[in-house]
Amino acid sequence: MIIVGELINGMYKEVGKAIQEKDKKAIQELARKQAQAKADMLDVNVGPTAKDAAGAMQWLVETIQEVCELPLVLDSTKPQAIEAGLKLLKKPGVINSTSADQEKLDILLPLAKNYQAKIIGLTMDKKGIPRDRNQRTELALKIVSACMEASIDTQDIFIDPIVLPVNVAQPQAQEVLEAIREFKLLAEPPVKSIVGLSNVSQGAQERSLINRTFLVMALAFGLSAAILDPLDKELAQAAITAELILNKSIYCDSFLEARSKA
Amino acid sequence: MIIVGELINGMYKEVGKAIQEKDKKAIQELARKQAQAKADMLDVNVGPTAKDAAGAMQWLVETIQEVCELPLVLDSTKPQAIEAGLKLLKKPGVINSTSADQEKLDILLPLAKNYQAKIIGLTMDKKGIPRDRNQRTELALKIVSACMEASIDTQDIFIDPIVLPVNVAQPQAQEVLEAIREFKLLAEPPVKSIVGLSNVSQGAQERSLINRTFLVMALAFGLSAAILDPLDKELAQAAITAELILNKSIYCDSFLEARSKA
Repeated sequence: MIIVGELINGMYKEVGKAIQEKDKKAIQELARKQAQAKADMLDVNVGPTAKDAAGAMQWLVETIQEVCELPLVLDSTKPQAIEAGLKLLKKPGVINSTSADQEKLDILLPLAKNYQAKIIGLTMDKKGIPRDRNQRTELALKIVSACMEASIDTQDIFIDPIVLPVNVAQPQAQEVLEAIREFKLLAEPPVKSIVGLSNVSQGAQERSLINRTFLVMALAFGLSAAILDPLDKELAQAAITAELILNKSIYCDSFLEARSKA
Repeated sequence: MIIVGELINGMYKEVGKAIQEKDKKAIQELARKQAQAKADMLDVNVGPTAKDAAGAMQWLVETIQEVCELPLVLDSTKPQAIEAGLKLLKKPGVINSTSADQEKLDILLPLAKNYQAKIIGLTMDKKGIPRDRNQRTELALKIVSACMEASIDTQDIFIDPIVLPVNVAQPQAQEVLEAIREFKLLAEPPVKSIVGLSNVSQGAQERSLINRTFLVMALAFGLSAAILDPLDKELAQAAITAELILNKSIYCDSFLEARSKA
């Protein structure tokens, strides 16, 4: 599975402060720690409060790239912040994210194509979040079709079925799992799937336990990638063990140590 | 999910010794502990070494029933040991197990009918263990058809897809998961599924971690029951959290304490 480190996000108080104060060390430390753990990519989100989102994204991208070679996942609702980041990337990154709305697709798909970026497509539109697996698949299909028209390779598309907090939307977890399974049938070669894992436990008790339990299920249903906290050791162990059981890595007695870099 | 406590099994050295020495206290302690934890039923296995399997089964059943009211799962390859146990049960139990071989079905299904016992059917026959999901489903269908001919309710059938150790049969876990999903389509009302959970980690390192990771996956694929160690607290927590995510129990902040009796 592809692990996208979630920790560089201005939504977190400490990170928001570091962005505001241009505290390079704090951000670079987060980048280093996540790379040392098991992250394959790093999510970069300036947070909701940044006044100059494009400027903040530029500073974050430059700051991270000084110490870290991982591909970056540019996470913003503002296309100008995404483009500001894309311009500076040393290696192809990921746009996080488009919805299924045509006006979003019209702006972001050309950017993806132009900067050889992969793209995350959320299965939602202006009407709101999806009710069940079928709506998720329908919206996914709309995004995939638009990507194909824009000549984006299907392997470069990550579909996000929108994970909802289990404490307020309990029936949705099963719908998300089934949607992940169905996404694999949408195109050939198949598109990838991705979840924002921490959402499942938002506002709940026992967050780490809920996160890792859901991640194991999602991997069994074919999940390709997750945005998560790579420093959560029990989460990392659950993911390693899930991949072992699913025959994605070969068993050896030291399978945990062999695969965890944390 | 239905939890069948696995600890009363003569295969374990201490238990084998208790059976040999007719040490009632040791067996009754195991029954009590499993009931106090989260077991819904108790597996009763005299072990491979008992000379008089039927006599040992009778002694175990009587001993356990003195202190414990849980239904018992009579686990033996010898039909006479199973019948000896069935005769003494105070409430309907479970026969563990038949294979898909006709001569086994011919002996055990009439016993199930006669003693109102449920029955576990292993998806294997004299040709050996199944190679993939399709063989598992074929053998399950043979067992289910035979049960229906014997007028056994489909809800009283537990199909066991045969879990194999991940360290020697890694591709089989995914086949087992898919088979569990397919079993639900075999009859209406659907048959139940069951696994001997500890098999998945037989001979491997990190047994508890492998067990709970596989259990979470199997529950997401629709597993109804598992024979497991109810005293493994992390396993119990994983199962409780899986059922929460799968909307089988309602979220509350104290969901772990509310549901664990351990």
